[in-house]
Amino acid sequence: MAVEVGFTGAVLDRADRERNDPEALAAALGDWRARLLRLNGLDPELDGEGRLVWDSLADLAEGSQPLFLGYIDGRPHFVPLRLGERHGATRSPALFAMLSLMLPDQAGLYACARSLVDWHQRHGYCAVCGTATELFRGGWARRCPNCTAEHFPRTDPVVIMLAEHDGRALLGRQAAWPAGRYSALAGFVEVGESIEEAVTRETLEEAGVAVRDVRYIASQPWPFPSSLMIACIATADDDRITLDTHELEDAIWATRDEVRAALAGDPAARFVAPPRYAIAWSLLTAWVGSGADD
Amino acid sequence: MAVEVGFTGAVLDRADRERNDPEALAAALGDWRARLLRLNGLDPELDGEGRLVWDSLADLAEGSQPLFLGYIDGRPHFVPLRLGERHGATRSPALFAMLSLMLPDQAGLYACARSLVDWHQRHGYCAVCGTATELFRGGWARRCPNCTAEHFPRTDPVVIMLAEHDGRALLGRQAAWPAGRYSALAGFVEVGESIEEAVTRETLEEAGVAVRDVRYIASQPWPFPSSLMIACIATADDDRITLDTHELEDAIWATRDEVRAALAGDPAARFVAPPRYAIAWSLLTAWVGSGADD
Repeated sequence: MAVEVGFTGAVLDRADRERNDPEALAAALGDWRARLLRLNGLDPELDGEGRLVWDSLADLAEGSQPLFLGYIDGRPHFVPLRLGERHGATRSPALFAMLSLMLPDQAGLYACARSLVDWHQRHGYCAVCGTATELFRGGWARRCPNCTAEHFPRTDPVVIMLAEHDGRALLGRQAAWPAGRYSALAGFVEVGESIEEAVTRETLEEAGVAVRDVRYIASQPWPFPSSLMIACIATADDDRITLDTHELEDAIWATRDEVRAALAGDPAARFVAPPRYAIAWSLLTAWVGSGADD
Repeated sequence: MAVEVGFTGAVLDRADRERNDPEALAAALGDWRARLLRLNGLDPELDGEGRLVWDSLADLAEGSQPLFLGYIDGRPHFVPLRLGERHGATRSPALFAMLSLMLPDQAGLYACARSLVDWHQRHGYCAVCGTATELFRGGWARRCPNCTAEHFPRTDPVVIMLAEHDGRALLGRQAAWPAGRYSALAGFVEVGESIEEAVTRETLEEAGVAVRDVRYIASQPWPFPSSLMIACIATADDDRITLDTHELEDAIWATRDEVRAALAGDPAARFVAPPRYAIAWSLLTAWVGSGADD
């Protein structure tokens, strides 16, 4: 099922081998064509066409370190890590407005840069022994000078899913969301479980709905702070909802016509759809396209 | 495509809500029917029927803490965390023999227990500030008494994939593997990329083979130490291999007949297949079942 997915399509060559090659990294840092992502805290700047704004390495602030993102069209690209800063918890309304304006391939690049910087800012110490760690592999790892443990950026897998029953899909609403917004249920994949088991557990925990026949639809990186969103559809044999009010404020079964109206932004729609850059939008779009209305 | 997948099918009720409920946790700890997994380091013990061996909470060693796994048939199940021990790097040959004997649902339960214990043993300090952390949420998190940061067990998504070209599948061999073993290529999903992008990048990096049309097949938890394996098949338009010798010792294109012979354990097969509990086995099995021989 080919469907548009936000935060994918970046043209970055991550040049994994060069991260371990001090000479290659030095050459990239010495390349006059090298570009440095302009960040305000963890937020980007956009030009009038939805593209990220880049500076040169000469603009690197005192006390910042350049993290090597990779190459675009043969030019090395970096993102600045400002030591001692921490922004992870703050997500400005301005940021979400920018995400809606950003070109898809630019959003993928930004997701990579943001998650990487945020991880460094919250992982300056060794989890094994508590010693302050040092950046290595061009910014793709940290190493402990005391116990030699190596630490790598986290990518947390999250399942996001629609249970489907008799031509309707199960949607939930969290109390903190914008008014009227409903979306797919979601939750972190835990140790010792598969994607399919996580979909089943989370749907049962949050809405009391048992599902079977989990089908994978698509995936997306989500940089708040660094999730891998895994979108699925599963079949429910029963539509009784038992809400976990710690997780959800409400849950509903929506028809394809209702979802279609919400995706179209119809003011008369039953609910407000998630934004287009979220994989929930892609999942709902795939679902309305996947069958006839009942 | 329904195919047997190792480490899945555990009947554990993870009882997520009770992890945050001190009264429920106290009741589980006070339940005389509670069971405690018997571990030697991080290795399990098996009875003659491939089932894990359990003790009672009275057998908890001095200086160990019980981590709450959840309920099986209404009985609380725990795994002991021995503080100060670290076993993560050691994987005994005896363990792999046991994995081959273990019933599938038991392997899923063991995967959960092993990953959880191993994570605690390597994450005793706060990555944000370096202070020693404390266990909370029944063992499903650690909290920093200094900066209040909360830390959750890692689950690292890994793609494992077959490139397919003209009726043959791309297999690789790492130098450290048992003699003759070939398997699917694999690599960690990085921040800022989707599953599909990681499959494409890793196949290009390791074997120089460009792929398109990535199809999801199945997933599996892999407790060494705590990966989520995501198995895919993709299409290659060209069969020229450019090996990254840092990653692979060799790579070959294998026909369905060759893979079938290896999966059957035929001593005359071109290569030795991965073990049945690894998702590479499931992926190869799905692939040989997915099309006619060319």
